Amino acid sequence: MLTIAPGDTVHTTTVDAGGSDEHSVKRSAGGNPETGPFYIQGAMPGDTLVVHVDRLRLNRDWAGSDDGIVQSALSPDLAIKTRDNNKSIRWHLDLANNTATPDPASDHLKTLAVPLHPMLGCIATATGPAGAPPPTGDSGNWGGNLDFNEIAEGATIYLPVSNPGALLYVGDGHAIQGDGEINGNALETSMDVQFTVDLIPGKRLSSVRVETPQTIIALGYSGSLDDAFRDATSNMAQWLTDDYKLTPSEIAQFIGVAAQYKVTEVADRNSGVALKINKSVLQTLTKPK
Amino acid sequence: MLTIAPGDTVHTTTVDAGGSDEHSVKRSAGGNPETGPFYIQGAMPGDTLVVHVDRLRLNRDWAGSDDGIVQSALSPDLAIKTRDNNKSIRWHLDLANNTATPDPASDHLKTLAVPLHPMLGCIATATGPAGAPPPTGDSGNWGGNLDFNEIAEGATIYLPVSNPGALLYVGDGHAIQGDGEINGNALETSMDVQFTVDLIPGKRLSSVRVETPQTIIALGYSGSLDDAFRDATSNMAQWLTDDYKLTPSEIAQFIGVAAQYKVTEVADRNSGVALKINKSVLQTLTKPK
Amino acid sequence: MLTIAPGDTVHTTTVDAGGSDEHSVKRSAGGNPETGPFYIQGAMPGDTLVVHVDRLRLNRDWAGSDDGIVQSALSPDLAIKTRDNNKSIRWHLDLANNTATPDPASDHLKTLAVPLHPMLGCIATATGPAGAPPPTGDSGNWGGNLDFNEIAEGATIYLPVSNPGALLYVGDGHAIQGDGEINGNALETSMDVQFTVDLIPGKRLSSVRVETPQTIIALGYSGSLDDAFRDATSNMAQWLTDDYKLTPSEIAQFIGVAAQYKVTEVADRNSGVALKINKSVLQTLTKPK
Amino acid sequence: MLTIAPGDTVHTTTVDAGGSDEHSVKRSAGGNPETGPFYIQGAMPGDTLVVHVDRLRLNRDWAGSDDGIVQSALSPDLAIKTRDNNKSIRWHLDLANNTATPDPASDHLKTLAVPLHPMLGCIATATGPAGAPPPTGDSGNWGGNLDFNEIAEGATIYLPVSNPGALLYVGDGHAIQGDGEINGNALETSMDVQFTVDLIPGKRLSSVRVETPQTIIALGYSGSLDDAFRDATSNMAQWLTDDYKLTPSEIAQFIGVAAQYKVTEVADRNSGVALKINKSVLQTLTKPK
Repeated sequence: MLTIAPGDTVHTTTVDAGGSDEHSVKRSAGGNPETGPFYIQGAMPGDTLVVHVDRLRLNRDWAGSDDGIVQSALSPDLAIKTRDNNKSIRWHLDLANNTATPDPASDHLKTLAVPLHPMLGCIATATGPAGAPPPTGDSGNWGGNLDFNEIAEGATIYLPVSNPGALLYVGDGHAIQGDGEINGNALETSMDVQFTVDLIPGKRLSSVRVETPQTIIALGYSGSLDDAFRDATSNMAQWLTDDYKLTPSEIAQFIGVAAQYKVTEVADRNSGVALKINKSVLQTLTKPK
Repeated sequence: MLTIAPGDTVHTTTVDAGGSDEHSVKRSAGGNPETGPFYIQGAMPGDTLVVHVDRLRLNRDWAGSDDGIVQSALSPDLAIKTRDNNKSIRWHLDLANNTATPDPASDHLKTLAVPLHPMLGCIATATGPAGAPPPTGDSGNWGGNLDFNEIAEGATIYLPVSNPGALLYVGDGHAIQGDGEINGNALETSMDVQFTVDLIPGKRLSSVRVETPQTIIALGYSGSLDDAFRDATSNMAQWLTDDYKLTPSEIAQFIGVAAQYKVTEVADRNSGVALKINKSVLQTLTKPK
Repeated sequence: MLTIAPGDTVHTTTVDAGGSDEHSVKRSAGGNPETGPFYIQGAMPGDTLVVHVDRLRLNRDWAGSDDGIVQSALSPDLAIKTRDNNKSIRWHLDLANNTATPDPASDHLKTLAVPLHPMLGCIATATGPAGAPPPTGDSGNWGGNLDFNEIAEGATIYLPVSNPGALLYVGDGHAIQGDGEINGNALETSMDVQFTVDLIPGKRLSSVRVETPQTIIALGYSGSLDDAFRDATSNMAQWLTDDYKLTPSEIAQFIGVAAQYKVTEVADRNSGVALKINKSVLQTLTKPK
Repeated sequence: MLTIAPGDTVHTTTVDAGGSDEHSVKRSAGGNPETGPFYIQGAMPGDTLVVHVDRLRLNRDWAGSDDGIVQSALSPDLAIKTRDNNKSIRWHLDLANNTATPDPASDHLKTLAVPLHPMLGCIATATGPAGAPPPTGDSGNWGGNLDFNEIAEGATIYLPVSNPGALLYVGDGHAIQGDGEINGNALETSMDVQFTVDLIPGKRLSSVRVETPQTIIALGYSGSLDDAFRDATSNMAQWLTDDYKLTPSEIAQFIGVAAQYKVTEVADRNSGVALKINKSVLQTLTKPK
């Protein structure tokens, strides 16, 4: 456990979801092993931990994935029979050209080139009163296996603190992940990670929030997309009440025109929905005095 | 009923959801009155009707909306009490500056300026064997009240044909609509509409598809977002099978990295999910011979 | 349209879902053709229509069904491949012995004998201000294609009135239907029907309620079972407030120990949940003065 | 850890969900503490553990509960404002008269008398390869916090074995629980428990099954009731295939007429649905040779 203070910057690495590092050496058991915990000096239950992802870079030339489709993405009457898809797929990561391609590639994917977009699948504070590490395949208001592809370089993540020191974990780097993580795996790989932490004492969040240079994002994770949608909306409504002093009527008017909802993931126990609002619109709100 | 031929371009107008036209004169009863039907010569059941939205322009300086939040967007434990929101809200549309503002605006919305983005809430072919007009507050594989904010100028919509002549309807113009249409209403207004129709004989679609200059989009609409998500995925899987000859394994690999899922609406009987794929990635697929 | 008065008893018949009568003569098009409307003298919007099902009897020796399973009942990974089930199944109704058997029966069903339990799949008042007949394949607070197997002889159904005269319809008789109507069809047959109507002036119901000799039942129908569950609970909570003056705390305590929730159907656009409470427990509530 | 053999009968007790025993003495921390594990000699991964609940008796005169309603049971527009229900409720258990009553009882519940029906909320085998105890507030194919009110005296539960010795746990006794456990708690109390175990070597179950003297019951637990419904149906379909050799068409015909679906619980992470079939109908199936 590394102890750091608010304002400190950490340089570290994450292994891939199977536990292999940048030299393809297996360092730990699979199942999204995480790096951490980091003990943040002064963090107390009821605070908000702020994590700026300063730098998130790929550090090897391959990622592992598969060709399955999770049940929550499949219509029972899908004419395309994907039931027997169960191959591991290796992807070549071309860092020079910033693209990924299956390797070997089947016939129609031989020229496929998808832009790399490194992201962290897992970011979490410890849960529970005893500081137990968070599960790495689940999510909650403590963060977790969010699998949200905008937790990338330049993003800031706001997490509730439940234990002294917060006990931050990061891991499950993805070279690319489409919305939903419909294969169950994304392009799982190792990463170089640099982040800076901060604290907002006494600010109690009910759910995870994210900020990027262009947007503010309220996350909702629940057992169905319909409930996740409601949770994301409630999370944003609370945010607009706290920081912008909007009334319930104003919240409705504003979200009604400004909301962008995307599905973050359907591959784990909770499904996730992100409610994004562009800062260009947000900045036209009249500031509370 | 106007009869047009494939390749023809139509210039028309739509009234707002309440039936009022560009002069604020009430022309019909409310409930998303639509313009149409247009009889497309030669269209037969089993064909696909192609509608290019060439031009979609606002033609008056106001829109009507409200400050409610639909049930499907509300957590029962939402601290913010929106239950009593039930005011009509008038929005001023500033066509010169391309922005909208509530009028009058309450305290925190006085400087709000949201970019206009005109869209058609309803586009549909007639349903059923008798050519009955489609319902205007519902959706299905025939289109309908899709409330998808990318059915805008420059978009192409692909609709199944169920009747001779297809019997196309358009309406329910929105000056702006956030994803989900969470107020139940968007910024409801009248429009000038220009579109061009085309036919793909013998191509039978199971669901609606949309194409924009940058993306291809498969829609799914169902009673829950979870089922809509599955339907959108199946719709895209079929598209990639038909037009790109991808195998089930290739479909999984490709959607896994390329999918963008957004929520289109939660305000009507069906909720909708759109699965979008950027053409920049799509074009790297190896073309079938 | 037959005009009847509160207190009147009606003797009528219903054809089967395909339109055939007790002599197997096709009398109308398929799609759950209903008998009605019955105009109830004095019924006005805002009243509650009470329908006692006095007698519900089979009047022929066969029913039609099929061997499909609707999508909402199928796991995508179901090892049993039911995808190709699409046969019509004829059932022999043995009125003397009160059982049904497939006819012809396949190997493992040759001795199958299921007790007959006649029920009405459809019961509805007219919807909308113009008195338009209700759709026969959908449901709502006006009743409709509820497919609830306790709408049987001896049951009393409470329906909201939306039009002068209420305009009552009945139909879609099932000789037997398992919960859920998972084949899409039940054992569809014709019926002899006798019912008595009554009115509760000025009592405005938000949803359908049912009473049997042993139970009171609040129905909820919505796009997902999760929402139907919520609607049934709200419907019962309102009932206990109105008629028993329970406080919110008392409602929670009482439903917490007394609720029986069953799934009524998953085969149509809305799925349904019934919240049943035994009268033996209900009668131990302390009567309001 | 007590080691027992197939055929052995165990007499034990369970504390209540808060950890208090039959003398109201707190014996362990709250959170559904369980009794166990019991190591069953010879049980190996891939076997099925059979647990007969021979006797399940209340052993004190009170139970603890509350007057809340869980979110999944609440419509956002429920006119009855239950949001502030948050009282603990003590229930008096009258073992002589076999009834329960809130104590003290509020005005309308003073004469309330609900029949006692003792049940086990938790029954589980250890999960995972390391034999870790199962979580006590969650459920899965290993059983868990099923909160199904038919796991009562006389029931037989079939559980998959994942570890040598199976490692059986029981706990979370409820004096009464309505379907759904909508208060989050049922009538939580301590119990005298007697059960007999058995093994079916080499029979691999995918989900939990239950048998009572009158019925066979396939359980489904998932993040939404809609998915739990599908899982219960699949579980029963597999059962009818394995033990009765029904074909897919026969499964559909049989479940279509014989299914009884009830909601088991909505209070935990998974919601549950039970598909019950009466043995009286089951026994009319033609036995496979």
